[in-house]
Amino acid sequence: MRQPVALAHAYRLLNHGPTVIVSAARHRAGQSPSDAIAAGQVNLMAAAWAMPLDFDPPKVAVVIDKATYTRELIEASGEFALQLPCREQADLTTTVGNTSGRELAQAGGDKFTALGLSTFEAECIGAPLLEGCVAWLECRVIPWPDLLRAHDLLLGEVLAAKADDRVFAHGRWHFDQADPGLRTLHHLSGGAYLLPGDQIAGRVTWPG
Amino acid sequence: MRQPVALAHAYRLLNHGPTVIVSAARHRAGQSPSDAIAAGQVNLMAAAWAMPLDFDPPKVAVVIDKATYTRELIEASGEFALQLPCREQADLTTTVGNTSGRELAQAGGDKFTALGLSTFEAECIGAPLLEGCVAWLECRVIPWPDLLRAHDLLLGEVLAAKADDRVFAHGRWHFDQADPGLRTLHHLSGGAYLLPGDQIAGRVTWPG
Repeated sequence: MRQPVALAHAYRLLNHGPTVIVSAARHRAGQSPSDAIAAGQVNLMAAAWAMPLDFDPPKVAVVIDKATYTRELIEASGEFALQLPCREQADLTTTVGNTSGRELAQAGGDKFTALGLSTFEAECIGAPLLEGCVAWLECRVIPWPDLLRAHDLLLGEVLAAKADDRVFAHGRWHFDQADPGLRTLHHLSGGAYLLPGDQIAGRVTWPG
Repeated sequence: MRQPVALAHAYRLLNHGPTVIVSAARHRAGQSPSDAIAAGQVNLMAAAWAMPLDFDPPKVAVVIDKATYTRELIEASGEFALQLPCREQADLTTTVGNTSGRELAQAGGDKFTALGLSTFEAECIGAPLLEGCVAWLECRVIPWPDLLRAHDLLLGEVLAAKADDRVFAHGRWHFDQADPGLRTLHHLSGGAYLLPGDQIAGRVTWPG
């Protein structure tokens, strides 16, 4: 079940290096996601290059290629969502990472409709959030236009965060106690992913 | 055994989201690392917030807090190394992430000597590289002073990359075929790490 994650814990959703799905809409919160989907003004794509940037208020950094339709929508609205797909969504993640939303939009379609994806409304932004993921971060762009142009690097402040409490509760991931289908994806290359395995504890062992 | 990694494959060392150890020296390549260590002008620290930024030439992004001694050394030399610690180094990673190199330097010491760490010389930079890690990326800072000041976000171009061929060969990680002690660390919080587990393949399943 989806539960809010305290903003001070939002960085922990990305700390272990999962691949994310980025969703965006052309318009900000206010227009309903279903209207935006109907208008072909939404998209989603996979991104392996995302990380936390700050603790509280939480911030994130993500690389979004300038050729993508998602990037165009993010630049239009100033908002985006990062969501963490799980093992059950490995094919979906690879699919949305290897298809163009722009071509679909030009033909009056979108990936959500074409792939039959279920979404729910975000709290703070206009982008639709994808059902079946294990965590969601709603973000507002922190403007660094030169950085975006030079390196496709997008910074965002996290406005709201949620997670599936079967795998993330009390500020921590608990993959070993849940359905293995809910593990996060860590992209290697070419659609191959590592899944989280054992968990270990490192100790401070300063001499003396 | 350490083997060179083609620069076009360097992003794959970081793609799955491992925690890194950052090392730096005050001086650029030319001064020998052992002299720099003797002079207390080197340091290393753990960082969970690192990711690839570009394919070829490969670039990286990493968050390095402005209070750290490592950051001071990087700003002085314009160089740093990212290296991937493995399971066998979990205590070491937690230790270098929770101790201050500046205090040691003020007392004429350094973490390498205090912890009895073995290093080897980098090809292109002055920072010492840590033995026992499973991959190494030698980086030159791409200057974004405003970004560094505002967000502690450091960008670098990868000049050389190496990996332990027991776990990374032919451009791919092979954790399942090697000693489990060689798996990368993925920081959760408070010194708890996830290790890579199963590997799966995602397929493009576009309808029709």
